[in-house]
Amino acid sequence: MTSIFKDSKDEKEIIKELERIGNELLEQIENQDNPYLEIPERSLGNVYFDKETGLIKLGDKKQRRYYFNIAQAKKFMQTLAVMSKIKWLLEEDKPSLSIRQLYYLLKHTISGFKENTFDTQDETDPIVEDVEVMLDVLRENLRLIATPNGVLAGDMIVEDKTGDILDFTKMGSAGGAIPPIVEDNYFKIKEINADYVLVIEKFAVWNVLNQQKFWKKNNCIILTGKGQPARAERRLIHRLAYEFNLPVYVFTDMDPWGYYIYSVYKQGSINLAFFSEKAGTPKAKFLGFQTKDVKEFDMPPSSFIKMKDIDYKRIKELRNYEWFNNTAWQNELKALEKFGNKIEQDALVSKSIEFTADVYLPTKIENKDFLP
Amino acid sequence: MTSIFKDSKDEKEIIKELERIGNELLEQIENQDNPYLEIPERSLGNVYFDKETGLIKLGDKKQRRYYFNIAQAKKFMQTLAVMSKIKWLLEEDKPSLSIRQLYYLLKHTISGFKENTFDTQDETDPIVEDVEVMLDVLRENLRLIATPNGVLAGDMIVEDKTGDILDFTKMGSAGGAIPPIVEDNYFKIKEINADYVLVIEKFAVWNVLNQQKFWKKNNCIILTGKGQPARAERRLIHRLAYEFNLPVYVFTDMDPWGYYIYSVYKQGSINLAFFSEKAGTPKAKFLGFQTKDVKEFDMPPSSFIKMKDIDYKRIKELRNYEWFNNTAWQNELKALEKFGNKIEQDALVSKSIEFTADVYLPTKIENKDFLP
Repeated sequence: MTSIFKDSKDEKEIIKELERIGNELLEQIENQDNPYLEIPERSLGNVYFDKETGLIKLGDKKQRRYYFNIAQAKKFMQTLAVMSKIKWLLEEDKPSLSIRQLYYLLKHTISGFKENTFDTQDETDPIVEDVEVMLDVLRENLRLIATPNGVLAGDMIVEDKTGDILDFTKMGSAGGAIPPIVEDNYFKIKEINADYVLVIEKFAVWNVLNQQKFWKKNNCIILTGKGQPARAERRLIHRLAYEFNLPVYVFTDMDPWGYYIYSVYKQGSINLAFFSEKAGTPKAKFLGFQTKDVKEFDMPPSSFIKMKDIDYKRIKELRNYEWFNNTAWQNELKALEKFGNKIEQDALVSKSIEFTADVYLPTKIENKDFLP
Repeated sequence: MTSIFKDSKDEKEIIKELERIGNELLEQIENQDNPYLEIPERSLGNVYFDKETGLIKLGDKKQRRYYFNIAQAKKFMQTLAVMSKIKWLLEEDKPSLSIRQLYYLLKHTISGFKENTFDTQDETDPIVEDVEVMLDVLRENLRLIATPNGVLAGDMIVEDKTGDILDFTKMGSAGGAIPPIVEDNYFKIKEINADYVLVIEKFAVWNVLNQQKFWKKNNCIILTGKGQPARAERRLIHRLAYEFNLPVYVFTDMDPWGYYIYSVYKQGSINLAFFSEKAGTPKAKFLGFQTKDVKEFDMPPSSFIKMKDIDYKRIKELRNYEWFNNTAWQNELKALEKFGNKIEQDALVSKSIEFTADVYLPTKIENKDFLP
């Protein structure tokens, strides 16, 4: 296992870390200092694209949140309330919850006052993120989940936290659902036999490949996040790429929206920079569909969708993202702009229903015909 | 098996039916008549709420689509193109496709002309629905799918079309994904041991119940459609209710949006009236959350969300739907309006994380404390 990424901490270590922070605060109080928490900054000013790792990351800036500070006192209290509730969740072995459920758990009237601890979820969500970065763990390590959407099929055996053994060669037409937490202590990958992971933007395209047993014939894992991926899909692909050293190929629509989805799998996203460090897959390659494929695979004009202003505008935005700032992608974005048409991955059935599985994907993969 | 609903036809019967319609057209042509197709009308004027069955249904009105009619000729041709492609999909045992993929399969330039068979999916989608009602089958019987979203857990064994045996007691933290086609020939339910089906609006709430093994302790199936349900979830619940004679209890947010989701499971929806006849579950009961539960279960004010104009407006709309026109629901909607607050099902954790599974659901189910 070679990874440029830290492993996730186990729950006992997290509890210890929370205790350490609590003890530090106690010490500050005993020393009659103004108690404070030191929290890595999550503002845009502290987010950057790290060329070396190919990931969107948080920088080193930190802020201090003080108790004796009128502007910070409430948030200081709220941060401790969140940390204390998370410690309790872990210690009491409670079920994993959504961050909305955590909000409801935390929200109450402070006895003797009319003031609430929290008034809206807008107050708890940023603090959950603060706690993630303070502890350098994902919220999933804190038993906090987001709704997953993806499914996958392929030769992989997993031992689930429930004790169930999941065999992803035997999940039928639906494929196996990706659970909300895919960390090792919840989703232990016991065996995997695959030459690569194929990530497919849309369920409809995944669905046809699954029926054709593409994963079996080509010894791979096929996975779809159903459009813009949720956290669990991104994190699982990261694990497959680095813990199991599998190549990852991403197959999307030929349009700026599909290209952006690829970039989220690969580099991550600005608004979840901290998560991106642990769930990005910089070694992912873009398989297609791309402009040069149009001629090479002789796509019929019936598969073209004329681009609109909003598409051209999005292409311009992509060209300005630092992680698209390389010759291959700048050329591709220019070519797409010039071509003036989008092609959806669904449209490959215009050639034939079998074309994607029998011609397009094997040709691209055999020739290693990818964009970086 | 007692059902007020027709079983789905098998694929051979559907092919025969398509041939019968084709032969009728041939006969009309040989008789030098103006060839036409007779299609049940899907316009709002032909949709009604059938009190006897408790379902939103299509009426008996039919329209004729003629070949020799300038306004209808193109649509006539398009209808035959769709029917012919569907026949081919079934005869050639092709994979199931999305209606978008079907559109791409059908769209091409007519040889010798510059005209396309179809220009946008807005032209194929209504014709797919026409073919469904003409044949009195669901599009899923024609191998046309919509993306499913739901997951379920419980004591049910299914033989999938792939040959895989799916055991929904062993699907781990994710639950078993609901496939896009849940008809008997794709998703054969071999065994089911459950006293009822509990349908849960939100994944986060389902997720906690699944971790608590609620389905095991209470001998039931727990299923979530993740908000507004897709076709497959609605159809599967219908099958469980009528083929396996299981009670169905629906658990949503206490707000007009949750109540409407309940009504979609139960009576169906106006814009998919034909589907509703085959996928509605009129015997479903509304478990909650409802206004009288607020006092009975002593919900804390921290769980209340003040209603906004848009919520009040939606309540008024619901009160005018014929299927909410009964004393119990009119009283509930008035009570909600008067209370002026919504409560999400997620908010039940305000009582305790175990409250939903250990107190709320068992109390409601034991007392049969439901709305109709």
